[in-house]
Amino acid sequence: MKKRVLNFFKNIKQKPDVILIKNSSEQFIDENFFYSTGLNKGLFENSFALLYPEGSIDIITTNLEYESAKKASANIRVYKNEKELYSILKELLKKASKIGINAKNITYKDVLKFKEFIPNKKILDVSQAFIDARMIKDETEIDKIKKAAEIADKTIQFIPEILHKGMTEYELAAEISYSLQKNGADKSAFDIISSFGENTAEPHYTHGDKKLKNGDIVLCDFGACFQRYNSDITRTFIFGKASEKQKRMYNTVLKAQKIGFEKIKTGVKANIVHNAVKRYIDSTEFKNLFIHSTGHALGMSVHDPGIGFNSECKDMLQKNMVLTVEPGVYISGYGGVRIEDDILVKKDGLELLTKSSRGLIEI
Amino acid sequence: MKKRVLNFFKNIKQKPDVILIKNSSEQFIDENFFYSTGLNKGLFENSFALLYPEGSIDIITTNLEYESAKKASANIRVYKNEKELYSILKELLKKASKIGINAKNITYKDVLKFKEFIPNKKILDVSQAFIDARMIKDETEIDKIKKAAEIADKTIQFIPEILHKGMTEYELAAEISYSLQKNGADKSAFDIISSFGENTAEPHYTHGDKKLKNGDIVLCDFGACFQRYNSDITRTFIFGKASEKQKRMYNTVLKAQKIGFEKIKTGVKANIVHNAVKRYIDSTEFKNLFIHSTGHALGMSVHDPGIGFNSECKDMLQKNMVLTVEPGVYISGYGGVRIEDDILVKKDGLELLTKSSRGLIEI
Repeated sequence: MKKRVLNFFKNIKQKPDVILIKNSSEQFIDENFFYSTGLNKGLFENSFALLYPEGSIDIITTNLEYESAKKASANIRVYKNEKELYSILKELLKKASKIGINAKNITYKDVLKFKEFIPNKKILDVSQAFIDARMIKDETEIDKIKKAAEIADKTIQFIPEILHKGMTEYELAAEISYSLQKNGADKSAFDIISSFGENTAEPHYTHGDKKLKNGDIVLCDFGACFQRYNSDITRTFIFGKASEKQKRMYNTVLKAQKIGFEKIKTGVKANIVHNAVKRYIDSTEFKNLFIHSTGHALGMSVHDPGIGFNSECKDMLQKNMVLTVEPGVYISGYGGVRIEDDILVKKDGLELLTKSSRGLIEI
Repeated sequence: MKKRVLNFFKNIKQKPDVILIKNSSEQFIDENFFYSTGLNKGLFENSFALLYPEGSIDIITTNLEYESAKKASANIRVYKNEKELYSILKELLKKASKIGINAKNITYKDVLKFKEFIPNKKILDVSQAFIDARMIKDETEIDKIKKAAEIADKTIQFIPEILHKGMTEYELAAEISYSLQKNGADKSAFDIISSFGENTAEPHYTHGDKKLKNGDIVLCDFGACFQRYNSDITRTFIFGKASEKQKRMYNTVLKAQKIGFEKIKTGVKANIVHNAVKRYIDSTEFKNLFIHSTGHALGMSVHDPGIGFNSECKDMLQKNMVLTVEPGVYISGYGGVRIEDDILVKKDGLELLTKSSRGLIEI
């Protein structure tokens, strides 16, 4: 794509030596806007929340969202164009000298613009405070994740019924998406993974036009998004009678998950859980075939930032954290097995939020 | 959500006077990564592309994406952890003193980190160059948008067949999503709008549990995403026999769209198209009920940046731009009509990319 690169440079007046593009995967949507205002309907594109130390909130939004914004306990200001927006911001920030921003969810461009229109303020990155606060879920949040988990459970149950020879992976994805919505999801939590046969060995693969055939492993990884909160579940089925090798893979992953579950309670470091799971898998014939982390925090993001079950994370599990536990074994060119559930950390253990059967199902 | 706000401030060591959250709607995914490398499979999370003035490209990615990256004409470097990443970046950028970045798709946090690890470089915002280049589509891009439009057309055609009394809006959304994927879409281009009755009067409404009843207006707005390129189509149906008022609304919007089409050719300013459409609607009984812009650029983003058919945009239409034309009329508490098609700008007019019938369909 040399032509495209040359064209970029042609378009730039003050030529840089190099252009750096960083690709990432999250969203510019700042969930903290919804988290701190409690709003869960509406898009609130280009809307702002100003949070004050004494707990009050100003929302700056457009006419399109004014009705939705009224549901928040906040002062609402409406702007029509950029000039009005910055004049409102200037007025509201008149007395502030230090402005905290969530640097993880705002673009560099927006900060440059802010500095241009509202100069002489000190900008502090407070992104860690948002991460810390959101790691511990409150009751409202737990209820919503439970509902999202319930929807995922309902959807899992109908999959064995609909699998049939010749069905494509994308047909299965479409059926899962349909079922999630029928069961009350606002939308699918993320791109549905519905893979067959050797494709199940690629953890990042979503779905294609591969047709289901006898003896295939079927891996389904998906979740429901309910009022901005997500669930995330994986089940692996065998289409036909499981071979001895498939059975051994399945039972190894199932036991690994159980070992993970048993480690989880408040006060335990997250890496202890991952290490126990990995150590077990590495003690079997499937050594070195568990190639990702054991799980991640779950909430308004499918991958909530902060804590995670991986070898690096020494953060301690705390009451009312919600995480996934998802060991897997992947044999390139053959297939993979993964079992994933969502759990709530309790003082002396955990509560399973997804409740679907985890036994081997042969279809 | 005072509790949440207080909790944030509690978590911050160097207290700001106020915290500013900006909510937005785009994605951190930088499509320019895929545009400039030509890659269209793979996620490339936390991957970088370095573009050099002579047209060469370095890709820095992880092992997970190494196989996919090889499809690009680029030098590929693989990193395992953050330390390795920055040491590769440092090495590759050794001779560069000015670094261009796409400030619109990188977070402030990432820039802060970059400055910390690779100090003493001048950072230039080159986001406008990307926008300018991508406004004019090349042949490969047009082919992909055409394919995405074809998939949307196939999906539109089956909607009248499946509408039935008592069907909910979310069931229709699920059917549309299913059909898009069956017809070859990688995924839905955006959250599907499938609204009934008075809900059709809200342009931002997606879908809920409202049931279809006789006489309802049915508005469907959706698109296919095919190899990272999108289509965007809207059709409005009447479930039952259209009332006189519904017919007048429909025909007004249809004529408005035709007026828009007739204005489009290279050299015309974008606002001229919008103004003609708006002027016509405002000359009818539906005065002031067309409340959004006439259309937007379309490509790797559903709303490609740059040009758009609105009153502010005086950019000239150029050959091989792709835009939507989507006039609408919205009567609060009653219903709305919108008709949307995707067009390719030609020297003496336009080529319609979506080809579904635009006549009034009573079901």
